[in-house]
Amino acid sequence: MAQIHPNLTITKSGISLIKANLHQAPLFISTLEATKQEVEEEIALGVKVPIPKDMAGGYTHERHKKNFFILQKAGNLFQITGDKKYAEYIKEVFMAYADMFPTLPLHPTNRSYATGKIFWQCLNDANWLVYCSQAYDCIYDYLTKEERHHLESNLFRPFADFISLENPRFFNRVHNHSTWANAAVGMIGLAMHDEELIERALFGIQDDGIDPTMVDDDGGYIKVEGQKKAGFFAQLDYSFSPDGHFTEGPYYLRYAMSPFLLFSKCLHNSRPELNIYNYRDGILEKAIYSMLNETDANGLFFPINDAQKGMSWLSREVVGAIDIGYHDFGLDPMLLSIAEKQGKVLLDENGFVVARDLAKGMATPFAHKSIAYNDGADGKMGGIGILRANGDEGDEICLLMKYAAHGMGHGHFDRLGYSLYDETGEVIQDYGSARWVNIDQKGGGRYLPENQTYAKQTIAHNTVTANEISQYQGSVKKGDANASTQYFFDASNDDLQVVSAKDDKAYPGVEMHRTMLLLKDDNFRKPLLIDIFKLTSEQENQYDLPVWFLGHLLSASFEYEKEATSLTTLGSDHGYQHIWREATGHSDKESTQITWFGKRKFFTLTSATDPEDELIFVKTGANDPDFNLRYDPALIHRKKEAKDALYVSAIESHGRYNPVSEISSDPFSGLEKIEVLHDSVDYTVVKLTGKSQKTWTIGVANVDNDIVSNHKVKLGEKMMSWTGPIMISKTMNQ
Amino acid sequence: MAQIHPNLTITKSGISLIKANLHQAPLFISTLEATKQEVEEEIALGVKVPIPKDMAGGYTHERHKKNFFILQKAGNLFQITGDKKYAEYIKEVFMAYADMFPTLPLHPTNRSYATGKIFWQCLNDANWLVYCSQAYDCIYDYLTKEERHHLESNLFRPFADFISLENPRFFNRVHNHSTWANAAVGMIGLAMHDEELIERALFGIQDDGIDPTMVDDDGGYIKVEGQKKAGFFAQLDYSFSPDGHFTEGPYYLRYAMSPFLLFSKCLHNSRPELNIYNYRDGILEKAIYSMLNETDANGLFFPINDAQKGMSWLSREVVGAIDIGYHDFGLDPMLLSIAEKQGKVLLDENGFVVARDLAKGMATPFAHKSIAYNDGADGKMGGIGILRANGDEGDEICLLMKYAAHGMGHGHFDRLGYSLYDETGEVIQDYGSARWVNIDQKGGGRYLPENQTYAKQTIAHNTVTANEISQYQGSVKKGDANASTQYFFDASNDDLQVVSAKDDKAYPGVEMHRTMLLLKDDNFRKPLLIDIFKLTSEQENQYDLPVWFLGHLLSASFEYEKEATSLTTLGSDHGYQHIWREATGHSDKESTQITWFGKRKFFTLTSATDPEDELIFVKTGANDPDFNLRYDPALIHRKKEAKDALYVSAIESHGRYNPVSEISSDPFSGLEKIEVLHDSVDYTVVKLTGKSQKTWTIGVANVDNDIVSNHKVKLGEKMMSWTGPIMISKTMNQ
Repeated sequence: MAQIHPNLTITKSGISLIKANLHQAPLFISTLEATKQEVEEEIALGVKVPIPKDMAGGYTHERHKKNFFILQKAGNLFQITGDKKYAEYIKEVFMAYADMFPTLPLHPTNRSYATGKIFWQCLNDANWLVYCSQAYDCIYDYLTKEERHHLESNLFRPFADFISLENPRFFNRVHNHSTWANAAVGMIGLAMHDEELIERALFGIQDDGIDPTMVDDDGGYIKVEGQKKAGFFAQLDYSFSPDGHFTEGPYYLRYAMSPFLLFSKCLHNSRPELNIYNYRDGILEKAIYSMLNETDANGLFFPINDAQKGMSWLSREVVGAIDIGYHDFGLDPMLLSIAEKQGKVLLDENGFVVARDLAKGMATPFAHKSIAYNDGADGKMGGIGILRANGDEGDEICLLMKYAAHGMGHGHFDRLGYSLYDETGEVIQDYGSARWVNIDQKGGGRYLPENQTYAKQTIAHNTVTANEISQYQGSVKKGDANASTQYFFDASNDDLQVVSAKDDKAYPGVEMHRTMLLLKDDNFRKPLLIDIFKLTSEQENQYDLPVWFLGHLLSASFEYEKEATSLTTLGSDHGYQHIWREATGHSDKESTQITWFGKRKFFTLTSATDPEDELIFVKTGANDPDFNLRYDPALIHRKKEAKDALYVSAIESHGRYNPVSEISSDPFSGLEKIEVLHDSVDYTVVKLTGKSQKTWTIGVANVDNDIVSNHKVKLGEKMMSWTGPIMISKTMNQ
Repeated sequence: MAQIHPNLTITKSGISLIKANLHQAPLFISTLEATKQEVEEEIALGVKVPIPKDMAGGYTHERHKKNFFILQKAGNLFQITGDKKYAEYIKEVFMAYADMFPTLPLHPTNRSYATGKIFWQCLNDANWLVYCSQAYDCIYDYLTKEERHHLESNLFRPFADFISLENPRFFNRVHNHSTWANAAVGMIGLAMHDEELIERALFGIQDDGIDPTMVDDDGGYIKVEGQKKAGFFAQLDYSFSPDGHFTEGPYYLRYAMSPFLLFSKCLHNSRPELNIYNYRDGILEKAIYSMLNETDANGLFFPINDAQKGMSWLSREVVGAIDIGYHDFGLDPMLLSIAEKQGKVLLDENGFVVARDLAKGMATPFAHKSIAYNDGADGKMGGIGILRANGDEGDEICLLMKYAAHGMGHGHFDRLGYSLYDETGEVIQDYGSARWVNIDQKGGGRYLPENQTYAKQTIAHNTVTANEISQYQGSVKKGDANASTQYFFDASNDDLQVVSAKDDKAYPGVEMHRTMLLLKDDNFRKPLLIDIFKLTSEQENQYDLPVWFLGHLLSASFEYEKEATSLTTLGSDHGYQHIWREATGHSDKESTQITWFGKRKFFTLTSATDPEDELIFVKTGANDPDFNLRYDPALIHRKKEAKDALYVSAIESHGRYNPVSEISSDPFSGLEKIEVLHDSVDYTVVKLTGKSQKTWTIGVANVDNDIVSNHKVKLGEKMMSWTGPIMISKTMNQ
C-alpha cells in the first residue's frame, strides 16, 4: 500500500476536483471563507494547550475541544489553499500536546467510568483523536520524518493505547462511546500506517476482562450478555437493526454517526478492499436514512429515550452525514434540500459536490415517509412505527409509536407509548430527558436526578402505567432483555394507516395490545389519530393512561373538581411523586371530550369512558427542589380495580385562532362520541360518531394478524365481516 | 351643500384617481381582487338576514356582522368597478333589513347594559350602522327616491334613533362604545343629509337623565363626574390626553380608532368647514402615532389594562389608521412600511395612494421612539413612559412604565408597574386580561371572573402590593379619580434613559417613588434595566414586589425551600388566592441573583436584599376552577413589617442558547452585586458592581426634580455631587 497523504477523509483527487471547479460551488466557497476567518482568528491567538483540569463548560475543556475542531479545519484549509501557515499552526499545536502528553496523569476530576486525560471522560479524548488524525493526515507530508516520529511516539500512539488498551471498558463495548474510540484508534492508525492499531480498531481488544456487572455513567451495562465481539465491525453489527434503526434513538444516532461515517469514509479511501459501504447490506446508508426519517416535519429528532428537544438535522454532525451520504450513496437529490437548510458543507470532496449540485438546482424536498423500523441487531426486538398524513393545507400529522428495545443506559420505560406531531412540532409530547445540555446552572449540563426519577418512568410517557409502577419495575436490565412485538403495520393506504403492537413482558400477567390509526377523511380537516389500547389480565390492576397534551385546557365535557387552595402529589414513586393532581373528574356518559388550545390551534381528545373511570388533570413539578422539571399538563384516564380494560380515544386537530383578527375557525371537534361495540379476546370493534350522525366503525382482529384471514363479529342483529387484522367501515348521512 | 354621492369615506374625485392610475398600485389591485372574490362568494349565497337571537360567536351574530362588512366592501366595489351587481345586492340586503327592523324587539339575550336589536349589545348595532352608512352612500344615486325614502324611514332613521335617543346611556358617554354610536348616527346623518342626526352625533343628546351610579358591563361608570358634554366632539375632547394617549390603552384605542377616523374622514369630505383634522391641535394624528408607538418591536400592542396579547398593528382596524394617516396627515413614509406588513389597503383613495407610494419604493422602517405620554384629557393624570435602546446585535430592550390614570372599566390596579420587552416580545410580562376573545369555550369569549379577581389586581403586575391589598383597595371609582405623577423623564441620552414617577394615593399613608433606567454600556451586551423603588410610610407595612419573568428558573444565588409534596395559596384575596407559593428563600448576602431561561436566552435579575426579606417563588393557577388562568412564574420580593423600604434591582439579558449546536453563550450575568450606598428623604445612591470590579454608581434626587439643581451626598469620606435629578458615575478597572 503506497503511503499517500492525505487519504483519510480527504484525498488528493478530491482536492484537485475542488481546486479546479471551486467557482461552481458558492456554498462551498462561503463555508471556506467562514472557516478561514474562524481558523485565522485562532491562529492569531497563538497556541493554547493548558494542563487539563475543568469539567465540560470549563475553560480547559472548552479550549481543548476548540483545538481539535480548529486543527481538523486547518488541515483541510492547508490542503485546499496550500497556505503553509495552517500546516505550521497544526504542527506547533501538536508539538505542544506531545510535550505535555507523556507525563500527563488522568484528568483530575475522576467522575467518569472511563476518565480521560485531556478531558474528564475518555469519550472526549476519543473525539480529540478522531479530529486530530485528520489534521495529522493533512500535514503528514509537510512534516519531516523526525517530526512525525516524535509526534507518533510521544503523542499519537500512546494516546491511542490509552483510550483502548488502558480503557477496555470504554473501548470494547458496543456503544456510541466505543464507536468514537474505535474510530479514533483506527483513524490515527491509518494516518500512521500502524496496522496493529487498525486491527484493534476494527476487531477490538481480544481479552478485555470486563466485569459483566459494570455500568457506565448513565446506568447502562458495559457488557451485553452473550455478545463476544468488539471493535468497529461489532459496532456495525450490533448498533443498528438490519434496517438502520439505532436503539438509543435518533438524538444519539446523530452523535454516533460522526465516527461511523468518518472512519468508514477513511476506510473507503484507504482500504477499499474492505468494501465498508456495503458492509451488512449497506447498513451505513440505512442508518443515515433512519436518522433523517426519525424527525418531525422540520427535521427535529423524535425525542426518544434520553434526548434533548430542539436538536435537528441542522446540527453539525448531520452536515457530515448529508454530504457523505449524498456523495457516496447515490446522489439523492432530497439530501441536497437538507444541505441547503444547513447552509454549510464539509470542506472536502463530499461537501464540494453537494454545493456544486445545489448550485445546479438539483435539490428536491426531503419527503418524510410513513415507515416502520425494527429494533435490535437481529431486528427482532420490536421497533417503532411512524405514520404521516397530510391535512387540508399541506400540513401534516405524524404519529410515532414505540414498541422497541430499551435503548440501554439512555432508555425510557415507555413500551407502547407514542408521541404526536404536526407541521409545527409536538402536539402530544414525550417529555424527553431531564437535562439542560451544556447549561452550566443545571447540574453542569449533565443528566439531572429527575431524569431517573421522572423522565425515564412510564407515567412520563403516553402509555399505560399499571399499579403506579413503571414497566419492568424500572429495571434497565429487564428492559434491555425484552422488547414489545409489532403486531401489524400498514401505511400503504394513505387514508387509513395502522400500527399495532403487543407487550406481555413489561407488566408480568398483563397483556397490552395497542392499535393506532391515522384516518384521513373529508369530514375532518386534519388526519384523525385513533387509539385502541386493550389490556388483559387475570389480576385486578389500576391502569393509568396519560395524554401529555401541549397547550391550555379550554373545556371538558365532564364534571371535575379542581383543587382550589392546596395541591398534593399523585403518588410517591415511579415518577408519580413529581406530578401534582390538579383536578379529578368523572363522566356519566359513555364518551367524553376535552379541548385544548396550543400553537394557536384547537385540539380535541374524545375518549370512551366508564362511569367508574377517574379523569385526572395533572401537572409536573412536584418534588423538584431545584426547578429542574418543566410544568407540563396531562389528562390521566384511570381505570381502577380492572382486570381487562379497553381504552379507545381519538385526537383531532380541528381549528385555528388568529390573535390579530381575533377570529376562531372551527373551535369545536367534528366528533360527537366514541363507543365500544364489541370487545372480546378475538375482536374489538369501536364506533366513532361525527357531526350529522356520520359514523366510522373500526374492527381489530386481536389474535390473528394474517392479512388474508377472514373475520366475523356479530353486532346485535348485524354481522360484520372483513379480511385482515383491521377493518374500517364508514356510514355517511344515515 | 350639494348632494353629492359618494362623499363619506370615498369621494368622486378619489374614484377618478383610482380608476385612472390603478396599474401603479399592485397592493391595491391585489386587495381589490381578493375583495371581489369575497363579496361575490357572499352574493352567490344570497341575502341572509335572520331574526337576531345569538350571542357573539353564534350564527345570527356572525351572520349580521359579516353582512355589514360585506355591504361596505360591495359599496366600494360598485364605485370602483361600476358593476351594478354590487349595488343591487346592497339594495336587496337593505330591503330585507327594512322589512325586519320596524317590528324587531330588543335582542332576546338581554345581557348588556345597552341591549341592541340586531346584536346582543348596542355597540355591535352601532358597528352595523357605521359600515352600512358607507354602503348606502355608495348606492345613494343608484336608488330611486322612493327606495331611499323607504330605507331611511323604515330602517336608517329609526335605527339611528334607537342607538341614540332610546339608549342615552350608550350614546351619551365618553367611551369607545359611544364613539361608535356617535360615528354611526353622524355617518348615516351625512348620508341621509339629516342635519338633526349630524348635530346629535357631534354634540350628543342634551338631557340624557342618566343615573350617575350606573355602570357598564365591564364595571366602568357611565357618567364621569363633572363632565357635561357628549357627542363626537366630547369624545375628541376627553378620550385622549393632549398628546394622543388613550386612557384605556392601545388595545382599546385600536378598536376605537375606526369610528374616530371613519367619521372624521366623512366630516373632512362632507363638512370641510369643521376642519376636523386640526381639531384640538391635531388630536387624531397624535392618536394614530401614540397607538403605533405603544407597541413592541414587532408592533404588538402593550397589553395595558384589559388587553388580549397578540393583537398588533397588523389588525384590520389599523389598516384604516395607516392608510388615512398616510394620506391625510403628511405622507409619512414610515407608515408605508407598516402598510407593507399589513399586506392590504383600504379600497379607497387613501389605500390607493398608500399602495401607489409603496410601489414607488418610498417606504422607510417605522422607528419606535422613546417617549412619554401624558394621560387624562387635560394631560394631568400621570402617564406612561417608554424607553427603548438597542443591543449589540441591532436587537432591542424596551421598557414600558405606567403611572397613568385608571383606564375606566378596563383599568388595572397597576400604578408604577412596568413591563419589559426585547425584539422578540415580552421579557417581564403584564398578565393582560383573563379573557379569550371570541373563544366560545371560555365563557363565550367574554371577560372571565378571574379578570376581576386576578388580572386587574395589583399583585398580577410588576409593582408593589402593600399588605396584600390592591391599590385603591380595588375601587374603580377611587382609581378613576386619581393618577400617579411623573417625576422625571429623559430619553435624550441614548446611553442612560430615565423614567421616574411617584404615587401617594394608591396606598394612603405610603409614598411610592419608582425610578427606572435603561443603561447602555459596553460592559453589557444588551441595555440593562435598573429599577429603584422607594417606599416611605409612617406605618409598618408588608411590601410585595413581584417580577413576572417569562421563562424557566435556572438558578438562584440564595437558599430556598421548594414545596415538595403540597402547595398552598399565597393569600386569600386581592389576587393572592390565585397564586401558589412554590418556594421560599432568604439571603444573607446584600445582593442576590436569579437567572432564568426563556426564548432561548439567558436573563438575570440582580437585587439588593436584606436578610429579613423573603424571596418567594410563585406560580399562578390556584382557585381557578375552570382552568382559565395561565400558569406563570414570578419571584416576589417581600419586605415585612417595614415602614420605609427600598428595592433596587437590575434585569439583564446576557446570553443565548442554541439547541442545535447545544452551545450556551454568555450564560452568566455581567453583574456581581448591587448595594445601597445612601438612602434618605432627599437622596438615594446605589452602586452596581460588574465583572472585574467595574462599578456604576447612580444617584437619585428624591425631592427636587429640577434639571438645574445641584446635589451633594456624603458617602463615607467622599462627597458626591451632581446636577439634575439623576446622576450616574462609572469606574472602570479600579
